Amino acid sequence: MRLNKITIIGVGLIGGSFAKGIKKAQLCNQITGFGLDEKELQKAINLNVIDDYCLDIASAVKDADLILLSVPLGAMQKVLTDIKPYVTEKTIITDVGSAKTSVLTAVKTVFNKIPTRFVAGHPIAGKEKSGVEAACDALFKAHKVILTPTSETDKHALEQVQHLWQALGADVSEMTPEFHDEVFAATSHLPHLLAFGLVNLLNDHEELGNVFQYTAGGFRDFTRIASSDATMWRDISMSNSDSIVKWLKNYQQELDHLINLVETHESDKIYDFFSQAKKARDTHIQ
Amino acid sequence: MRLNKITIIGVGLIGGSFAKGIKKAQLCNQITGFGLDEKELQKAINLNVIDDYCLDIASAVKDADLILLSVPLGAMQKVLTDIKPYVTEKTIITDVGSAKTSVLTAVKTVFNKIPTRFVAGHPIAGKEKSGVEAACDALFKAHKVILTPTSETDKHALEQVQHLWQALGADVSEMTPEFHDEVFAATSHLPHLLAFGLVNLLNDHEELGNVFQYTAGGFRDFTRIASSDATMWRDISMSNSDSIVKWLKNYQQELDHLINLVETHESDKIYDFFSQAKKARDTHIQ
Repeated sequence: MRLNKITIIGVGLIGGSFAKGIKKAQLCNQITGFGLDEKELQKAINLNVIDDYCLDIASAVKDADLILLSVPLGAMQKVLTDIKPYVTEKTIITDVGSAKTSVLTAVKTVFNKIPTRFVAGHPIAGKEKSGVEAACDALFKAHKVILTPTSETDKHALEQVQHLWQALGADVSEMTPEFHDEVFAATSHLPHLLAFGLVNLLNDHEELGNVFQYTAGGFRDFTRIASSDATMWRDISMSNSDSIVKWLKNYQQELDHLINLVETHESDKIYDFFSQAKKARDTHIQ
Repeated sequence: MRLNKITIIGVGLIGGSFAKGIKKAQLCNQITGFGLDEKELQKAINLNVIDDYCLDIASAVKDADLILLSVPLGAMQKVLTDIKPYVTEKTIITDVGSAKTSVLTAVKTVFNKIPTRFVAGHPIAGKEKSGVEAACDALFKAHKVILTPTSETDKHALEQVQHLWQALGADVSEMTPEFHDEVFAATSHLPHLLAFGLVNLLNDHEELGNVFQYTAGGFRDFTRIASSDATMWRDISMSNSDSIVKWLKNYQQELDHLINLVETHESDKIYDFFSQAKKARDTHIQ
C-alpha cells in the first residue's frame, strides 16, 4: 500500500498535518508540496513536513499517485482547472473541504464528469492556529473523517484514501455529499455564524460602552469560534449557502419560540426548555 | 474592619466561596450558614467553609453584622420576607443575584422601601460545577464584582461590602441596576439562551439522526454554557425578561442581516461581517 508520491496542494495546518502523519507512518516515498507562497513551502521543508516543493503545478502533480487538495473552498475550482491537464486516469485526487456538494460541482464543471478516482473528503479536525507551523502528525487521531463517495467512485481509490486517514488514527465514515452538507450546516456552520453574529451585535452597540469587559469564561468559550479565519468562513458560507440559510432560519424559529416563552413568563416551559438542552448536551457531548 | 458575624443564606458555590475567602482573609469571627438541606450545611462545616449553621432563619441572622443572600433569584423575595423581622437598622444585607432590578423590586416589596444598608451586588464568576464542594477561596480573584447602589445607599455599608470583595481579590465596580441588567442581558443572558436554543434545535431534528456525534471542539465550547443549571437560568429569564427579550430580538435582527447576505451571496460583505467579528473578539477577549 506504500505510495511513491503524494502531492499536497496547500501546505497549511490540514495539508501539513496530513503530510506529517503520512511521513511518520512511512506510507509514501516522497511528499511534494505546492503553494503560492515560497516562504511557506520552505518553512514546510525546514519543519520536515514535506520532502520537496514545486512552484509550478505541472511539476508538482507530475507522477503523483495521490493529490490532496487542501485549499480554501473558494480556490477549489481554479486548482482543479490547473491540475486537470496533468492528472492521469491512475491519479487519485482527494480534498479536505468543509462543504462537499460544491466541491463535487466544481469537479464536474472542470472535468465534465466526476473522475472515478476523485474521492471527496472532510476531516473534522482543526485548531485555533492555522499555517504549517501549527501542523501536527496527531491532528486527526481519534477525529472523524467523512468521505462522500458517489456510486461511480472507484473502489480501490476509496479504499486507498480511507486507508491513509485510518493510518493517521482517524475514524473514517461515509455519507452522501447532501447529507454531509446538511449535518455540518447544522453542527458546524450554524454555530460559527451565530458566534460571529453575537460578537458583531455587541461590538456595534456603542451606547453600552465596551461591554466585552464584563464578559466571563462562558462568553469566551461561546465566541471562541468567532476568532476563526474570515476567508475560510466566507468560502464555506458561499459554498453551502442553501443549507446554511435553512438552518439559520430553523434557528430563528427556535428563538421565536423561546422569546415567546420569556415574554409571556412561562416559567415551567422555560425550565423545560433549558433542562432539555442541558440533558441533551450532558448526554451527547463529553 | 473585622466583623463579628456574617450569615450566608445559601451555602453553595458562590456563598461557600465567599465564606472561604473571608475565613482565609480572617475578616470575621464567625460565619454562620443557613440553608434548606442540613446535609449540605454539615458538608460545609466539614469542608471548613462555615463555622456553624442554623436550621431556623431567625437564629441564623440574629446579631449578624452582614447577611449575604446567595440563593436563586426566584427565592429572593421569600428569603427577604423570612429575614425581615430579625434584621436591625445596623445589619448590612447584600446579595449575589445575576439580575439587579428584580432583586431591588423584591426588597422594596418586602421592606416597603430599600433599606439604606442593602447593597445589591453581582460577582461575575462561576464554575461548571455547583454546590459547596466546588467552593474555592480564590473564585473571585481578578474577577469583576458589580455593585448597584442607589442614591440612598448608606456609604459605610457600601464601603464595607466593597472592602470584603476586594479582600477576596475581586475588581469591584459600580453601575446602576438598570445598566447592569442591560449589559448582562447582552453579554451573559443572551449567549446562555442562544446556547440552550442551539442544543434543543439539533436535538429535535431526528431526521438527521444523532448529529452530536459529528460535532467537534468548537461546538463543545460554544455549547458549554448550555450545561448550566436550568433553575438558575429560568429564574434569570423570569427576573430580567424585558432586557433579555430586547436582546434576543436585537440578535434576531443581526441574523436577518446575515441571512440576507448569505442568501444573496454577498461575498465581500460576508467576509467583512466575519472579519469585523474576528477583529473585535481578538481585540477584546483574551
